[in-house]
Amino acid sequence: MNSFIAKTIEQITPLDETAMLAARARQDQLTKPQGSLGRLEALSIQIAGVTGNARPQLKQPVVITMAADHGIARQGVSAYPSEVTPQMVLNFLHGGAAINVLARHIGARVAVVDMGVASDLPAHPELTNCKIAYGTQDFSVGAAMTREQAERAIQAGIEIALREISPSTRAQGGADIIGTGDMGIGNTTPSSAIVATITHRPVAQVTGRGTGVDDAGLARKIQTIERALQLNQPNPSDGIDVLSKVGGFEIGGLAGVMIGASSKRVPVVIDGFISGAAALIACTIAPSVQPYLIAAHRSVEIGHRAMLDHMRLTPLFDLDLRLGEGTGAALGISLCSAACKILDEMATFEDAGVSEKSE
Amino acid sequence: MNSFIAKTIEQITPLDETAMLAARARQDQLTKPQGSLGRLEALSIQIAGVTGNARPQLKQPVVITMAADHGIARQGVSAYPSEVTPQMVLNFLHGGAAINVLARHIGARVAVVDMGVASDLPAHPELTNCKIAYGTQDFSVGAAMTREQAERAIQAGIEIALREISPSTRAQGGADIIGTGDMGIGNTTPSSAIVATITHRPVAQVTGRGTGVDDAGLARKIQTIERALQLNQPNPSDGIDVLSKVGGFEIGGLAGVMIGASSKRVPVVIDGFISGAAALIACTIAPSVQPYLIAAHRSVEIGHRAMLDHMRLTPLFDLDLRLGEGTGAALGISLCSAACKILDEMATFEDAGVSEKSE
Repeated sequence: MNSFIAKTIEQITPLDETAMLAARARQDQLTKPQGSLGRLEALSIQIAGVTGNARPQLKQPVVITMAADHGIARQGVSAYPSEVTPQMVLNFLHGGAAINVLARHIGARVAVVDMGVASDLPAHPELTNCKIAYGTQDFSVGAAMTREQAERAIQAGIEIALREISPSTRAQGGADIIGTGDMGIGNTTPSSAIVATITHRPVAQVTGRGTGVDDAGLARKIQTIERALQLNQPNPSDGIDVLSKVGGFEIGGLAGVMIGASSKRVPVVIDGFISGAAALIACTIAPSVQPYLIAAHRSVEIGHRAMLDHMRLTPLFDLDLRLGEGTGAALGISLCSAACKILDEMATFEDAGVSEKSE
Repeated sequence: MNSFIAKTIEQITPLDETAMLAARARQDQLTKPQGSLGRLEALSIQIAGVTGNARPQLKQPVVITMAADHGIARQGVSAYPSEVTPQMVLNFLHGGAAINVLARHIGARVAVVDMGVASDLPAHPELTNCKIAYGTQDFSVGAAMTREQAERAIQAGIEIALREISPSTRAQGGADIIGTGDMGIGNTTPSSAIVATITHRPVAQVTGRGTGVDDAGLARKIQTIERALQLNQPNPSDGIDVLSKVGGFEIGGLAGVMIGASSKRVPVVIDGFISGAAALIACTIAPSVQPYLIAAHRSVEIGHRAMLDHMRLTPLFDLDLRLGEGTGAALGISLCSAACKILDEMATFEDAGVSEKSE
């Protein structure tokens, strides 16, 4: 892989055990029975370890939503036409999409990135142009992208993460938690191909209806992926090879975001199936990324469970979401923020003069 | 039952089907695949039906946290001493408890109500004194309260809900969504007694460790409840009888909050095990309350599942919480708010010029 990616990965360290122990000790002194806030407690401790701060505060959440088109969409694997990708990017920029509503709800900014939409998009202050190409190639007839393009996509994602995290970039300070999101008609198909490859599962077990194909569409999607894997033979232990053979530009970009954020000790809340595919790529390239990831939710898409199991991530909630865009990640960020506020703001037994458990 | 309670129940109507159909139709025009926001869509439609508004907005959430003491605590059924009840009420009033942190996180007010704490509490603008008595009687040796006290507790809860909902009470307008919360050392014991009675299940199947009793404590708790049910013979089809024989003042108050809010078409987000016991009482007295309830989460406490199954409520999330106070309800309110914003604020396909699904 290129030296920029390699150097970024070298900077990723294990979680800070000292901060985690201090966070655990404080949780046990707060005015509640020990452990009674369940996963919120565990989440606050993970974020303490990620940030190296025993009382982390999350004040600048950013959802990075990456868009790209997919040559494989020409095989009739999606219920929607590819023209919806740029239309939805414009919808993001105008604030009318679900991710805009949920980002406003949680007080987050949405950073929209064109990683490879198949048309030109107008300039906009919230849109970053990292277009690698006008969509991937149709991976049912060859590789989705070159290896060099795959590395460029990952590098662009790292650079976007570093830009968002840098305190100098934004007047209000850099991002202290990042959510990942995607937009790309057809992108459940590369995601299923990626999870089948990396987790060694049959395609039919990890392929669902995406935005809503019918039975015939689902059968076609499964056959298309099976043929593509036969043809391309992606190497499951080489994340860049998998990305280049059967991936997508937004998937590579999001894998880069995860690597970049981990290198700066910023927690990453991953959304659903497409973000999960990006996480599989990131963790295959750099297993040290895994502790920095927080799985927001379990998607309706059937391959999502296999991904999360493979990465040993337990989602925070299951609301039958299957939209993408970072919608689940936004709700997950809100829980991370709640968890950190509990750790930071609650009174201790001593502060409040409350009697402790009788032994 | 007394005429105030009866008249309030008469005012509860079924959900507004017209508003629900309009909300469903709008969800299907928003720029996302139909159904792709899963339970958030269903939640917005329920709230449309509750409020009678096809695009409901939730701007004034209030968590009503009711506190009381329990004579049964003298039987050694809790890991904490009863003095913690008033200590925690003071912690609520000083803003240091988990419910304060989470209410601030979601922009809600916490209304604290003394339904029957076993000591006098200082006057405070956020504390309402509805003390029915200085704690219940020990229901292992007789009824927890008189039938008249049970009705007074329910009536007080209705009155608190009506006060919170009334636009004239608060400068910023009345509550448009209510979360329920509890504080009362020993109160998982009456809650287990209530769920065993109303759902006809063995006590051991619906009794857990509460705030953390050990094995011996759990065995004692189960035996205590079994003996109490033998002695008191609560009538499972008479919610007021169950409340008076084996309930608690905060449980009665919360049942009243649910009845009062339903009579004013305000959605109620119920918290965990104690709020669930109150909901069982409310739904036994007035089955028309059920559609107005939203179950926030599945508690660690084992009897909670039986309660929710009995009421046919599906919790929104499961974060292994077992604290009470309204902490789960606060997080649930945030999801309700997110769901309503999706319905109200998202662009339609027509607004945004996005192509619809190809047929």
